[in-house]
Amino acid sequence: MRTDTFSQRRPAEDLTKSKRLATPAVAIVGATGAVGVELLRVLEQRRFPLSALKLLASPRSAGKQLSFCGAPFTVEVLGPSSFDGIDIALFSAGASTSKDYAPQAVAAGAIVIDNSSAFRMDAGVPLVVPEINADAMTLHKGVIANPNCVTIVAGMALWPIHRANPLTRVVMASYQSASGAGAAAMAELRESTAAYLADRPFTPTVLPHPYAFNLFSHNAAIDPATGYNGEETKVMAETRKIFSAPDLRVAITCVRVPVLRAHSIAITLECERPITPDEARALLGAAPGVRVVDDAAKNHFPMPVEASGIDAVLVGRIRRDVSDPSGRSLMLFCAGDQLLKGAALNAVQIAERVLA
Amino acid sequence: MRTDTFSQRRPAEDLTKSKRLATPAVAIVGATGAVGVELLRVLEQRRFPLSALKLLASPRSAGKQLSFCGAPFTVEVLGPSSFDGIDIALFSAGASTSKDYAPQAVAAGAIVIDNSSAFRMDAGVPLVVPEINADAMTLHKGVIANPNCVTIVAGMALWPIHRANPLTRVVMASYQSASGAGAAAMAELRESTAAYLADRPFTPTVLPHPYAFNLFSHNAAIDPATGYNGEETKVMAETRKIFSAPDLRVAITCVRVPVLRAHSIAITLECERPITPDEARALLGAAPGVRVVDDAAKNHFPMPVEASGIDAVLVGRIRRDVSDPSGRSLMLFCAGDQLLKGAALNAVQIAERVLA
Repeated sequence: MRTDTFSQRRPAEDLTKSKRLATPAVAIVGATGAVGVELLRVLEQRRFPLSALKLLASPRSAGKQLSFCGAPFTVEVLGPSSFDGIDIALFSAGASTSKDYAPQAVAAGAIVIDNSSAFRMDAGVPLVVPEINADAMTLHKGVIANPNCVTIVAGMALWPIHRANPLTRVVMASYQSASGAGAAAMAELRESTAAYLADRPFTPTVLPHPYAFNLFSHNAAIDPATGYNGEETKVMAETRKIFSAPDLRVAITCVRVPVLRAHSIAITLECERPITPDEARALLGAAPGVRVVDDAAKNHFPMPVEASGIDAVLVGRIRRDVSDPSGRSLMLFCAGDQLLKGAALNAVQIAERVLA
Repeated sequence: MRTDTFSQRRPAEDLTKSKRLATPAVAIVGATGAVGVELLRVLEQRRFPLSALKLLASPRSAGKQLSFCGAPFTVEVLGPSSFDGIDIALFSAGASTSKDYAPQAVAAGAIVIDNSSAFRMDAGVPLVVPEINADAMTLHKGVIANPNCVTIVAGMALWPIHRANPLTRVVMASYQSASGAGAAAMAELRESTAAYLADRPFTPTVLPHPYAFNLFSHNAAIDPATGYNGEETKVMAETRKIFSAPDLRVAITCVRVPVLRAHSIAITLECERPITPDEARALLGAAPGVRVVDDAAKNHFPMPVEASGIDAVLVGRIRRDVSDPSGRSLMLFCAGDQLLKGAALNAVQIAERVLA
């Protein structure tokens, strides 16, 4: 268990009840990355009521200009005084940057919404999908963590069922897009595919395996004790934390597929009590942030191209798991934009709840 | 249950004990298709002792020339007298062609090895993966069926475990390549991807959904009664038949991914008794036709690009299913060439057993 990095922050009323939070000054750390760019777009589209915006990145990206609501913003180098006057800092620059700078941002008075894995499993850090566990936010000590993208997409499909008929077991296989490995991986997928089609050699530099018309087990390091990779371990632990279901049995195989920006997941789930596909369809149809796409006659189900660029997580292929005669198990297939609900949108939804 | 189309054939000794079968005359039906071309290559590479070769296809492909062992062969139109003098007919032109012509081939004295789904579930037709159930071939009445490609690839990974510690439940999610939908689908994947990269519009004509950097639920028709598509239903039923395990509980989600020619499958399996990953690794390592690719330190596991063009089915990611505390469940990931072991190679292996 990690120690709680954020136990020293000042009393909650200084921040959450401050008038400043009605129109906060916002910083984006990692503004030029795949998620950073989406954070800007989502803040703009949702008319997030910010009073000031600071874009931060590594020295390599400093000086770049990005547009927000028609105005140019220059990317600044992330440094010790970056968070002076900042009320909300959206971090999306990897776990080590978050570990280094989130405590400084909190010390400077900001609430950090962290898209990295740095603090997700810390006992003192809420791990939040607003549609699922917005209540957990009230206990934050300066940092609120945004879950892993697969955790969010799967969680959106699982939660409406879980709250009606608690899940006892979940088995999943993911179909993860290039965007999960960042903008450079998306470029590598495009470039390596173009090279393949032109019969030109291509040496991958971002991902460890050929990506053109290929797929591979997620390249996060494997835990030799369990055989699960880091991505899988995150999804399993985070799902239990977000659902406040420490005994939920979850297993997943995480695979990167040559898709640009939405993650898909094949899910087999078991509930405490029998459940029918129609019951699940009704629960999912009524769930905020979920769109049921389950047209068997037209063979139209969730697809990455249709999930890309939209807020909702698509869920379909809802049917009995015929390998479980108890009637308690279902199978389904979902797809969600890894950069939106899987990252930027969820982070901005958390920020909106901070204001509320 | 279908009626047995092949109960009228002449006594077995006429064919199987004939001297002609030592150096048979072979016909390939669907010779210009993706599997047909591989059948030619596999027969050539394995020095199949044929005495004559006849290439058959629809009128559209008739007249094309294909090379076999350096000699040109002209594709002929499939017709009523196509099987005169043929000893072994390898069918790979779809279920309706098999239904129309396989009975004629059998009546003409040929043994049919059918790669379509036409007769797979007929009680009188053996459904064979030679490494699994070669014995079933002895009971054929003129037709031996080649299983669905996913069935074969998954079966190769499951059987070595099943024979040591019987499977009770299998849950799978497939990552199926374009080759499973034929040469035209492979071309559509390449062409639609090139169009995407060049920002040109592309309208799919072979598959019902966009394929460039996208994936979709297998487009076989959904059975409204079960919610499973035709591909999934095949895999579930065929696995039980090949394993002679009518009570084996199997469920699968079949998905087409933008990969050219090897199928991958994420498998969760449950055995009668506890089993460890090391036990499974040893069983798979000793199994003919299987290669264990399970290097956790190097994050090197089965991938379509490495499974393409080789005979072995690759199996890795062998680990406990942490969602089942009983110790009876494992997870693994496999990849196999859909056109080789998933189709042409398996058919030729059956033909080799017919000779033996």
